[in-house]
Amino acid sequence: MKRLGVLLSGRGSNFRALLAATREGRLAAEIAVVVSNVSDAPGLAHARAAGLPAFFFDHRGRTRDEHDAEVGRVLAAHAADLVCLAGYMRLLGRAFVEAHAHRVVNIHPSLLPAFPGRAAQRQALDYGVRVTGATVHLVDAGLDTGPIVAQRTVPVEAGDTEESLSERILALEHQLYPEAVERLTSETWRIEGRRLIFLAR
Amino acid sequence: MKRLGVLLSGRGSNFRALLAATREGRLAAEIAVVVSNVSDAPGLAHARAAGLPAFFFDHRGRTRDEHDAEVGRVLAAHAADLVCLAGYMRLLGRAFVEAHAHRVVNIHPSLLPAFPGRAAQRQALDYGVRVTGATVHLVDAGLDTGPIVAQRTVPVEAGDTEESLSERILALEHQLYPEAVERLTSETWRIEGRRLIFLAR
Repeated sequence: MKRLGVLLSGRGSNFRALLAATREGRLAAEIAVVVSNVSDAPGLAHARAAGLPAFFFDHRGRTRDEHDAEVGRVLAAHAADLVCLAGYMRLLGRAFVEAHAHRVVNIHPSLLPAFPGRAAQRQALDYGVRVTGATVHLVDAGLDTGPIVAQRTVPVEAGDTEESLSERILALEHQLYPEAVERLTSETWRIEGRRLIFLAR
Repeated sequence: MKRLGVLLSGRGSNFRALLAATREGRLAAEIAVVVSNVSDAPGLAHARAAGLPAFFFDHRGRTRDEHDAEVGRVLAAHAADLVCLAGYMRLLGRAFVEAHAHRVVNIHPSLLPAFPGRAAQRQALDYGVRVTGATVHLVDAGLDTGPIVAQRTVPVEAGDTEESLSERILALEHQLYPEAVERLTSETWRIEGRRLIFLAR
């Protein structure tokens, strides 16, 4: 059974989706530890209420690498095989990313490489695309540039606001993320160039 | 009945898709003229065989603007309301684009803004996306940057080659392009920022 570490900064709705999937057997993994850089993140409270090891590490008053290292130590102490970002509003430093190469996964609310970075839904609306979606990808040292694990689409509807589009994408994320993590943890894959290739069994 | 001018450089499979749609009543417009910069383009021969006015203008030995102007004159002479690019392998100059603002439409084999320019299918495969598609857009002075009219998706399958993916996208293009041109010619729309907005009737 693979062990997941989850990093979050807010309500952690994708963490909840992962947790529900593990408990309903759709994701054959267990959440080993939850870490936040925000002491009162609702996701952290939810983790505690669910009986999961849950830690807060303030990022203020230390360097990025120092904070990353604290997070890394608690992940290692809980033997996390895969680190799942779930609304973690901190960039991970190069040292952490390299130490956890191909072991950190994120979900982003656009069809990457379109609309990386903040406010991806707003960017998509402003560009005028007719289709957008969500992307699960491995984290590398760039901004939303790592190898893609899974993508799925939603239409942009006439009259969509940033809120209505974000909601539609979020509902998709809650399905896509557990599915993608299930594939990553249960299947064999390799990285070729910048492609993640699942190997037929 | 809106009149379409079609520009092509090769087999013109999207031209054929547009022509079929006009003849089957799925596209309430008529093809007024077909123009090519390649004398032996199969699409040009197809246009002639179909009884359509069809012209060849060599782009060699003249400037881009001179060539564009020749094309523009024959489009005007045939009273084309909308210019549909169908595998036209020439960049249109700024003068032509500005003289035909919001009246030139193109189809591109990716979900723009991802993978503009040449070999979009190859770019998508190399990036490792799981979803790509086709985009119908108005042509502006940039490379595949104009306002988006329509987009539709196809999956990238494990084992896809540039050929297999291109074929899947092309089949989609042949459906999407006539549908998008039908909307453009039959509905009311306006440009807002860089968004094309169809107005409810």
